[in-house]
Formats: sequence, C-alpha cells, structure tokens
Amino acid sequence: MASLLRNAGRARPALARLVARPVSRKAPIAPQRNYASASASAVASDSSAPALFPDEPSGPIVRTEIPGPKSKAAVERLGKVFDTRSLNMMGNYNQSYGNYIADLDGNVLLDVYAQIASIPVGYNNPTLQLAASSPEMVSAIINRPALGNFPQHDWADILESGILTVAPKGLDQVFTAQAGSDANELAYKAAFMYRRQQERGGANVDFTEAELASSMTNQSPGAPDLSILSFKKGFHGRLFGSLSTTRSKPIHKLDIPAFDWPVAPFPDLKYPLDQYAAENQAEEQRCLAETERLIKEWHSPPAAVVVEPIQSEGGDNHASPAFFQGLREITQKHNILFIVDEVQTGVGATGKFWAHHHWDLPTPPDMVTFSKKAQTAGYYFANPDLKPNKPYRQFNTWMGDPARAILFRAIIQEIDRLDLVRNTALTGDYLYSGLQRLAEKYPAEILNLRGQGQGTFIAWDSPRRDEVLKKAKGVGINVGGSGERAVRLRPMLIFQPKHADLLLEGLEKVFRS
Amino acid sequence: MASLLRNAGRARPALARLVARPVSRKAPIAPQRNYASASASAVASDSSAPALFPDEPSGPIVRTEIPGPKSKAAVERLGKVFDTRSLNMMGNYNQSYGNYIADLDGNVLLDVYAQIASIPVGYNNPTLQLAASSPEMVSAIINRPALGNFPQHDWADILESGILTVAPKGLDQVFTAQAGSDANELAYKAAFMYRRQQERGGANVDFTEAELASSMTNQSPGAPDLSILSFKKGFHGRLFGSLSTTRSKPIHKLDIPAFDWPVAPFPDLKYPLDQYAAENQAEEQRCLAETERLIKEWHSPPAAVVVEPIQSEGGDNHASPAFFQGLREITQKHNILFIVDEVQTGVGATGKFWAHHHWDLPTPPDMVTFSKKAQTAGYYFANPDLKPNKPYRQFNTWMGDPARAILFRAIIQEIDRLDLVRNTALTGDYLYSGLQRLAEKYPAEILNLRGQGQGTFIAWDSPRRDEVLKKAKGVGINVGGSGERAVRLRPMLIFQPKHADLLLEGLEKVFRS
Repeated sequence: MASLLRNAGRARPALARLVARPVSRKAPIAPQRNYASASASAVASDSSAPALFPDEPSGPIVRTEIPGPKSKAAVERLGKVFDTRSLNMMGNYNQSYGNYIADLDGNVLLDVYAQIASIPVGYNNPTLQLAASSPEMVSAIINRPALGNFPQHDWADILESGILTVAPKGLDQVFTAQAGSDANELAYKAAFMYRRQQERGGANVDFTEAELASSMTNQSPGAPDLSILSFKKGFHGRLFGSLSTTRSKPIHKLDIPAFDWPVAPFPDLKYPLDQYAAENQAEEQRCLAETERLIKEWHSPPAAVVVEPIQSEGGDNHASPAFFQGLREITQKHNILFIVDEVQTGVGATGKFWAHHHWDLPTPPDMVTFSKKAQTAGYYFANPDLKPNKPYRQFNTWMGDPARAILFRAIIQEIDRLDLVRNTALTGDYLYSGLQRLAEKYPAEILNLRGQGQGTFIAWDSPRRDEVLKKAKGVGINVGGSGERAVRLRPMLIFQPKHADLLLEGLEKVFRS
Repeated sequence: MASLLRNAGRARPALARLVARPVSRKAPIAPQRNYASASASAVASDSSAPALFPDEPSGPIVRTEIPGPKSKAAVERLGKVFDTRSLNMMGNYNQSYGNYIADLDGNVLLDVYAQIASIPVGYNNPTLQLAASSPEMVSAIINRPALGNFPQHDWADILESGILTVAPKGLDQVFTAQAGSDANELAYKAAFMYRRQQERGGANVDFTEAELASSMTNQSPGAPDLSILSFKKGFHGRLFGSLSTTRSKPIHKLDIPAFDWPVAPFPDLKYPLDQYAAENQAEEQRCLAETERLIKEWHSPPAAVVVEPIQSEGGDNHASPAFFQGLREITQKHNILFIVDEVQTGVGATGKFWAHHHWDLPTPPDMVTFSKKAQTAGYYFANPDLKPNKPYRQFNTWMGDPARAILFRAIIQEIDRLDLVRNTALTGDYLYSGLQRLAEKYPAEILNLRGQGQGTFIAWDSPRRDEVLKKAKGVGINVGGSGERAVRLRPMLIFQPKHADLLLEGLEKVFRS
C-alpha cells in the first residue's frame, strides 16, 4: 500500500494509449518516468496476475445469514428516517476494501455490483484517500464556488489535468454537472438551443418578441414543440426531461407527467450471436428504419437521438457497432444531434475507456454524457455552436463540483497507473470464457450470455433471477440485476482473474443449490 | 481560531430555541454545557460586537482594477475550456476568509453575494475545515454509496444529528437530493404520485393495465395530465420540470420545451409598505383569487402549488404572511399540496432558520425544499402518504450525498455555536436602518427598499443597477443583482454590524460617484 501512496498523482502513459487526447489544448507536462510499468505486470489474462490490492481478503467471508442481526437492527432504525424498502444490504464502508464490501455482522462479500456500477477503483482506495484528504479537496468542499460566476483560480487546471484528459475521441470540451440524470438534461437543453438557433438562422439572429413572450408562458415558439428520441428499454435518468426519454419499466415512470416524445425500438438480438447473424442484422435494420421514420414523421421533431451503448438498467441489451454506425448516419442525414449516454458504460468498464470507442464511428457523437464511475458528471462536446449564443442560457448555481472533479482526476490517475482499462479488457475475456463453460454445464441457468469483448460488462438471463441474486449473498457474492430477468455484472475496474474465479465458483454453488 | 476548533461539533442549545425539533424522533443526547454562551456575546445589534472571525481583514483591500492583470490572464486561459461569459470574478479561495473573497491580484472584497447566496458560515471556516478533513468525510467522498440500495451503517446517525435537527416545524422526514433544482423536481414527483394515489383510491389500489401501458409511451393516464402551479417571476431551477415552474426571465427559458402548466400572478407590492397597506392588501387578494381560479379551471389540474417565501432570482419580491396564509388555505381547501421552495431563503438568512417560519401558518407546508447554504439538498415532509406506495418509485443511484450531509451537519453546529440566526436577525435590523438612512440621503439610488425584519435578506431597486454592481467592486464590495433592476444583499450568516458599516460606506462612495 505504501507504493500505491507514493505513486499517486503522477504520469499516466498507459492511458494515453487508450484515450485520444484532444489536440487543441496542451496537456500539462507530466514527468516522463513510467510509473505504470511496475504495476502493469499486475494486469494479466489469467489468475496468476499479482494482486492490485495485496491487502484484500483472499475471498468472501460469510459469518451470518444476510442480513444478520446487527444489520437488521440498524436497518430497522434507519427505516424511521429513510425509505429502506429498496435496501439491498447495509454497508460498513470502514471495513470494506478493494473489491470487497463489508456489513455490520462481519460478512465480507465480493462486490460485482459496486454501488450500481459507480465505484471505479475499489473501496478505500489509498490513492483516492490521499486525494480526498488533500488541502485542495478540503478547500473544494468548504469553499464551493458558483462556477459560472466565481470560478476558482485553478478550475482550468482541474479540468485540463482531469476530466479533459479522458475526453472521448474528437471531443475537447466539457460542461460539468452533478449526476447522470442532470448531465443528460443539460445535453438535451444544449440540443434544443442548437436546433432552434439553426432554425432561426444562426447565433447572431435575435429572439423574436413572440419567442420572448411565449417562453414565459411555456408555449411555442419560445418553448418549442421539439423532442428527444430515445429507445425502448433505454434508461437516461428520472428527472422530468430525462424520465421522458427513459423507457425501462412502468415503476420508474408511473404517475409522472411526461413529454410526448418518440420512442424507437431497440434491437432485440438473439444469442449466441454467431448463430443468428442474419436475423440480428435484419432486426437492427428494422430498428434503424423505424428510427428514421419517427425522425421524419413525429409531430414534435427530434432535436437529438439519445442512446446507451449497452442498455443497462433496461436489461443489458446490446447492439452491434453497425447499428450505432447506422444511427450516426441517420442523425447526420437528418441534421439532428447524436447523444451517447455513457453514464453506466463509461470509464473503462467495457475494456475501452468509453464504450462507444468500440464502434469505430467515422465522426464522433455530438455529445457524450457521463457520471457514476467518474464520481462527477457532465457532457463532452466539440462543436462550438453547442455553446449557446448568450451567457446564462446554460447555467445554474454550482454547475458541477470542483471537489468531485478533483476526485475524478485521482480516479483517472489510478486507472492509468494500474493500467485498469487493459485489466478490465483482459479480465473480461477471462470471465466471459468461464461463464461460457458454466453456461454449457448449466444451460438452464445461464441464457443469452452477452458482453463478449466488452470487458467485464457482462450479463445473462436467468429464469430464477431474483432467487439467484439472493442466494449469491449466501455464498459471498454481491451481484445485481437489470431489466426483468438479467443478472448484470458490474465489477470495479480492479476486478482480476482471481476474483473472476471466486465469482464463477460462487455462481456454481448457487446453480447447484 | 483555536477556540473555534476546540468547540466544533458540540451541543447546539441556541438553535433549539430557533428551530422546532420534530417530536416523533429522539434527538441524539447532547452534552448540557452551553458552548454557545461564550460566543453569544459576539452577537449584538451594533458595531461594538466582538468579531466572530477575529482573523478577518479589517476591511476590503483594493489593489488593482478588477479584474486585474493576473485575473485577466487566468480568465483568458479558462475561457478555452469553460464558458466564462457569465464570469463575475475569479476567486482565489486559498486567500479568502470569513466574509472576504480574494482574487489573484491581491484584491480582497467584502462578499455580500456569497456564491449566489450559498456560502453559509464564511470562507475557510475552521469548523468546516475540521469536518471536511475528518476520516468520516474522507470515507464519504471515496466510498460514495447508492443510498437507496446500500446505505452506509451510520446514515441514520448523519440524518438524525444533522439535516433532521433543523427540520421545519411540523415536518420530520427528509428525502435528500443534490441541488435545489432536483430537490424541487423530486418534491414535484412526490406530489404527482400522492395526487394519483388519492384519485386511485389509496396506497393499496393497484395500477391498472392502462396506466402501466400508457406510462411507457408518456401518455395519460400513466403519465397524467397534471401540473404544478407556480408564480410569475418565481424561480425553481432549470431542469425540465423545475424550469416549467420557473418564470423569472426569457433567457432562462428560451428554446427549452416546457410543460403547459399554470402561472399565477405574484403580488406586486408598493413601498414603503405602511403607506400602501390597503392597496397592497387588495393586490394580494387579487393574486390569491387568480390562483384559486387557476386551480379550479386549468386544463391540467395542479397537484401542488410551489412558491418561494421571497422571490429571489426574480427580483426580490416579497409578500405578506397573510398572502402565504391565504395560499395555505386555498391549497387545503382544494386538497392540493403546498410546496415552499426555501432553496435561497432557508438556513438562517432571513433571521429565522426557515423563512416560512415568519408566516405563523396554522398547519405546516406539505413539503419544504432546500439547498444552497445547506450545501446539500432535499425536501422535508411529514405526511407518510408522501412516501410512494412502492419502493423504487422515488429512487436514483445516489439519492443525495453523505459527504454533503456531513458538511451540513457541521454548518448546523456552527450556526448553533455562534448563534448565527440571531446574529442575522440583529445585523439585518442594523443594516436595514442604515439603508433607510442612505435611501433618505440618496432617494434616486435606493428605491423600494425591502426586507425589513427579514434578517439580511434585503434588496432595493436601482435605476442604474448594473453600474452600481460594477462600481461596488472598485470600493471593495462584491454584491449581486436579481430581476431587472434589484440589488440583492446575500451576505453570509457571519455578517456583523461592522461589516454592515463597511457596506454602507462603500455604497455611499458608489452613490457619490
């Protein structure tokens, strides 16, 4: 752990190979010594890899049924002041470390859910601990600025040495936010303002009196009849605009007023992919054709299409690069914006820093939104016209949070130092092979295994999903679901082949039960 | 400063007098020794009061024009990666202390804008510094839980010893959020779910097939045609739902699709109030009558009315307690919810912990939203039916942030220890008297002075507002505006009579220029 601390916050050569740096800015000069080289040997494709977290437990510890007596008492107490009906497990984060989450009863579980895919580099990661206790962080916490009006003097540094170093290929600007839901809404706002500016004839054309007046009564043309097109089973957040694009489950949407925006079908692929190549291709073409039809015919024209690279909350639904290339083509053809929601897929989990880098697009998405493992949020973009033509149009009091931006910088440094994107790609392949073997052995338990070549972003359908999730706790595994019947794996980026072995052993115990 | 550190995080007897504690929970037992008594002497109604921050500068320091050369260079650099068109002043928060904000050129300004009213107890407050560097805070930053699924074991403690100790009178539950805008949207969602549950016949009545299906296509009845009623010039945030209730200025709303929700007139009072008592009363009655008409006749029935105690962004517009009592009466009569948006007015600024405590309502509001000076966000409520009937209906990944909840707890302790709500009430009276004298001397500069008896939440109209704000920097004062022509004062809670003297002197210099 001492060496972890010593190396924190230095060069990130490994990451440079994985993430395109924007060319229009100078990155701060980093020392040339390759701090990642020593630890790169920890990244390997089998269980012989040295531990990234040597002090981790060697495996799960299950002492009581879960929840145990202490957890039960604590949950009952919490229930008096907080809604505990969705509680899965109460965490004792003082005792959690690396890939392992602890509870109050001394149980320590291998965590492949990771706070709904939002813990990037392990509980109590020493590098993050150092960043979080730095004077810079303390100041950011207690002197939180209104960034649009009174930015702190080192805000450019924090952006340039952190968030912007991992900007997706072709994008070099960022607008910061607080969570995935508002990141998406801010991107939608940028899309609407862009669209209306185009319709109006450019940034220099003034608003009309009719626009000014009608905006104040929520009427067109000031509040225009435009939309965002999203996909069936997509999830983009639960505020009013983002929820209008979320199509995951009724329980997420019931009783909440929503905008009358269009929803296109998302490909419903058949597995294994190689056996259904022609059918799946036809299915993707069908979805693309319907998307194009909606763009042309919907009563409120879409200003943008928003899509997840892998539909996560909605059931781990994948589509091929060809589908996303098709979407990019259609959006360009009809001059509407293409927003990629990487809130859950981003920051390394799929074996690339951004999942859409798997698609090899000829032109980048117009906006890419992020949160979760970034521990901050926002949207990346490049087109200067996506900046509204006047100040205070895209604005709010805090406009992000320097404290969380500092934390993301430390996360990026840790990902780089430990070569974690490569680790996730290699470990993902190892895990996927293991799951294939398990699926052959227990064909009734693992259906539609998916996520090959997508790092550890792997899922399958289970006929007794909720039972599997519950029983997994008994064998020391904390794992989550998505959609109606998918088991979704969302381990941290420090998940190694030896953890995959433990996961596979645990799953086999559950399947045998 | 040593004594500040020593006393941090102890008893809060003073606050107990100012804020009603919910009766249904046991507050953690606090030591009986009165730590506030030593410092209470610092709270006084004139400039003889001992300094709450003895190490503060004795007054502003203006070394260069603002922005000076170093700031200009830094702003230019920031402009390459961040929108600086709304930039007011770049802060050097390492050099800022107490009521004073520093820049990069050695200028140190008395800050009565305080990051758009969001800094509660001074820059680099030592008590907050201690809280922000505690192991508890470090863990909260690096091990951020998905609170709905995996809450940390001390989350009940953090709520009970912090946010809930200052719950408004009659409210004893809280749902946490991240910023004012999403706090309001979550309250709106609670209101819609509550309304539909009533229409449906109670918590145990199942959703219909039609509701389940239509919710997924954003159509009624699943996505119901209901609304939130707000007021002209009100401001409630800038996400899609909150922006639909915001009616401040076109620049906040242009080009963004909005829900067709009703807007009622907010009283346009004449000043001085005592000269226009009858007219103002009639104006408030007119607004109440129109509100009631909209509730009865609007095509999408309102599930709730949302109102700020003092319209802040929209121009510092006040109304009498009678008006708000009338609103409470109308909402009860028509069985719709009453949401008070205390995002800007809350946490002590008006001389009470919550501004709506000035109204002496017979029954509390149904929900009270907060953020800014709380440095976290959420809504308070009491009615158990405001908790949706099933889990995962009011849910998101993070559901607030324990790090910020820990910070709010420290803010509450500091407010209590230094008796800051009383300080704000007394200093506000002192400041208001000074402004009255200034208004008599410069009647063309200070019009419609308002906020008497509302702590330091004071404003006036200025025929040359933007020039006054700009010139104030030259005399060492950082002050903001609201609406079209209001100068709004939003000092921190540690603003004392001696600071008021400096502010009054500075303003007089500006008026003379």
